Amino acid sequence: MDTLPRLERIIAERRKADPQASYVAQLHARGLPVIARKVGEEAVETAIAALTGEREELVGEAADLIFHLMVLLSAKDIPLDAVLAELDRREGVSGLDEKASRSE
Amino acid sequence: MDTLPRLERIIAERRKADPQASYVAQLHARGLPVIARKVGEEAVETAIAALTGEREELVGEAADLIFHLMVLLSAKDIPLDAVLAELDRREGVSGLDEKASRSE
Amino acid sequence: MDTLPRLERIIAERRKADPQASYVAQLHARGLPVIARKVGEEAVETAIAALTGEREELVGEAADLIFHLMVLLSAKDIPLDAVLAELDRREGVSGLDEKASRSE
Amino acid sequence: MDTLPRLERIIAERRKADPQASYVAQLHARGLPVIARKVGEEAVETAIAALTGEREELVGEAADLIFHLMVLLSAKDIPLDAVLAELDRREGVSGLDEKASRSE
Repeated sequence: MDTLPRLERIIAERRKADPQASYVAQLHARGLPVIARKVGEEAVETAIAALTGEREELVGEAADLIFHLMVLLSAKDIPLDAVLAELDRREGVSGLDEKASRSE
Repeated sequence: MDTLPRLERIIAERRKADPQASYVAQLHARGLPVIARKVGEEAVETAIAALTGEREELVGEAADLIFHLMVLLSAKDIPLDAVLAELDRREGVSGLDEKASRSE
Repeated sequence: MDTLPRLERIIAERRKADPQASYVAQLHARGLPVIARKVGEEAVETAIAALTGEREELVGEAADLIFHLMVLLSAKDIPLDAVLAELDRREGVSGLDEKASRSE
Repeated sequence: MDTLPRLERIIAERRKADPQASYVAQLHARGLPVIARKVGEEAVETAIAALTGEREELVGEAADLIFHLMVLLSAKDIPLDAVLAELDRREGVSGLDEKASRSE
């Protein structure tokens, strides 16, 4: 389960690579609007694969979406941990809500 | 770093909850097209926050995107591990590519 | 100002063309999920061009978006007039609202 | 068939209205990123309605998409005619291509 931290390190390393040798470096060379666009497009593909595609197609699109989201976070110098901490924080809050409402 | 597996378990549990008490149950009650739509919409918000928003806004939108993607995977009975395995598989392949190209 | 009705007729004609000779026929051959995906993707590109691009880029993306929306409507056998009638209907309703609120 | 030019005039007028009385004025008050986001989100809803919804739902989402696209163009001071001219220009070019390929 260390896929995402490892992917984060690899993306950080590749930002400095030759754009001709690395897709991550190429995305960075094309700029933030292109990276942001890819996140939007991969999510559209994920949504449509969930509605009309085979399981393998959805797995592939979800992987593409996570990958490009991590490139976007890297481009903005936001560690994945900041996003996971936000998910934890919400979970803590809504977890209490859920418990309260389930105890009714 | 066990946020995502924990979130996955919580989402699985809440699918069976009362839609009035749980947002996850409510999304499931509204159906797959609504969940898929949320993934697309949250990605649009993430992309735009990256281009025009403050850091905290992007962190929040990225958390929303990951959360709704996990609800979508759960709705299709796809474990997060299947998506992480796909990311690992690609990394293995493109990692070799990168090494080959960097050794030139 | 007859661009859209003319485009609608051309799209209808090309649906039956050879996919190798016509982009519209090719989209139809690939199926509704691909056409729907293109509408989502072109809208993401339009949104991002509005925020970060030059005027000409936004004009081009908006044209792409309208074109693919019209291919999608054609694929679902919905005439553009049905969408324009809906816009007229809303305008009538909200037009009254606006007049009412402006007369205050 | 004068729905869109009329809508364009109405949107231009309402930009200056009271945001509490007009949705267009409210969108402008919230700013370009919100308007751009709405275009992306309405396109996602249109795509999903085309795949899973009833005809009336798709008509309504397509109307929402066109409306918000026109608000976005207005916000960037781009007349609809500029987008229609781009569609005409492409049609001229690809129309010749089609004729050439159909004469084979």
